[in-house]
Amino acid sequence: MSCSSARLAQQIAFINEIEKLKLVYRRNRTIDQSRFENSAEHSWHLALMAMVLAEHANTPGLDIFTVVKMLLIHDLVEIYAGDTWLYDAAGALVQAEKEAWAAQQLFALLPADQAAEFHQLWEAFVARATPEATFAASLDALQPLLNYLLSGSPGEPGDMLAEQDVLGRKQGIAQGSQTLWELAQDVIAASTARGLYAA
Amino acid sequence: MSCSSARLAQQIAFINEIEKLKLVYRRNRTIDQSRFENSAEHSWHLALMAMVLAEHANTPGLDIFTVVKMLLIHDLVEIYAGDTWLYDAAGALVQAEKEAWAAQQLFALLPADQAAEFHQLWEAFVARATPEATFAASLDALQPLLNYLLSGSPGEPGDMLAEQDVLGRKQGIAQGSQTLWELAQDVIAASTARGLYAA
Ligand SMILES: [Ca+2]
Repeated sequence: MSCSSARLAQQIAFINEIEKLKLVYRRNRTIDQSRFENSAEHSWHLALMAMVLAEHANTPGLDIFTVVKMLLIHDLVEIYAGDTWLYDAAGALVQAEKEAWAAQQLFALLPADQAAEFHQLWEAFVARATPEATFAASLDALQPLLNYLLSGSPGEPGDMLAEQDVLGRKQGIAQGSQTLWELAQDVIAASTARGLYAA
Repeated sequence: MSCSSARLAQQIAFINEIEKLKLVYRRNRTIDQSRFENSAEHSWHLALMAMVLAEHANTPGLDIFTVVKMLLIHDLVEIYAGDTWLYDAAGALVQAEKEAWAAQQLFALLPADQAAEFHQLWEAFVARATPEATFAASLDALQPLLNYLLSGSPGEPGDMLAEQDVLGRKQGIAQGSQTLWELAQDVIAASTARGLYAA
């Protein structure tokens, strides 16, 4: 394809490459249970959650566009690094290194100024370095809980996560939003009542 | 679920309802051709395109967050109204009425102030009422062209869209961005060369 400028060609190469996020599948399912949710539609859902739930952030006056941008790009590294399940401790150890490498590869497709902007957004998100990053991370932790209550099926008792383990893993939601952490506890309790977690 | 406030309960009802956009499938495919693309991941892709391609808008100084918000919500009406293919003229006639009804239903789940904000964004997008809406519409028209060149397979000659018809349907891209319209023409020509449109 002939592009009107080298800069536009770089931008289109990036836009084409991120098509692949639609093929990174998560553990959660669509609500008809026909397939696994992918990281692109998950990111879309999070961006809309940021628009709707902004007022519940612990820190008032957040830059919501920054939250939205972080959420739109936060999972792009999975294109090269894969998705690691929150409850997989061994996988998490090497995952951080793989993701740093993946961010380097992927954002380098963009023109240098945009590569730097995207890299900075992603690093702030990973490090929970700003109130925007902390709130974005709270939404990222909340969305699968909401989805699971809608789409989950009671499993074999031996396969189920324990409610106490889920509560422990998700308590970081309180750092971005005390209100959403209270909501999350209600959602987790409702899921246990439905047989989705072991009591 | 007991929510900490009626307002939060409305917001969560909306967030749960829009799960359904992940089940509205389009004509385009994922790049591994394993399934059809859905409107949620399409909307995610568009929001990222707005972040990356903003500088190519005909109108300088656009409010890019408004463009992103429009793109994140532009297809939500399909949850109730379904997707109408761009080339289906009969379907388009009743579609506008169905979508206005769908917007009413869906945004009414939100608290009144947010319902009004979302409705206004959606109406501006549909009417191409602002430079932000016009640029958002150009991205919405461009994305499936980029995707099709990556994911399409040459079809039976009788089934293929004609290149001239595609050029006619897509020329509105120029209203939001002359640069992206020139790119789109290159993408269409490359697709014809690959046997994806009839010359
Ligand atoms: Ca669309």
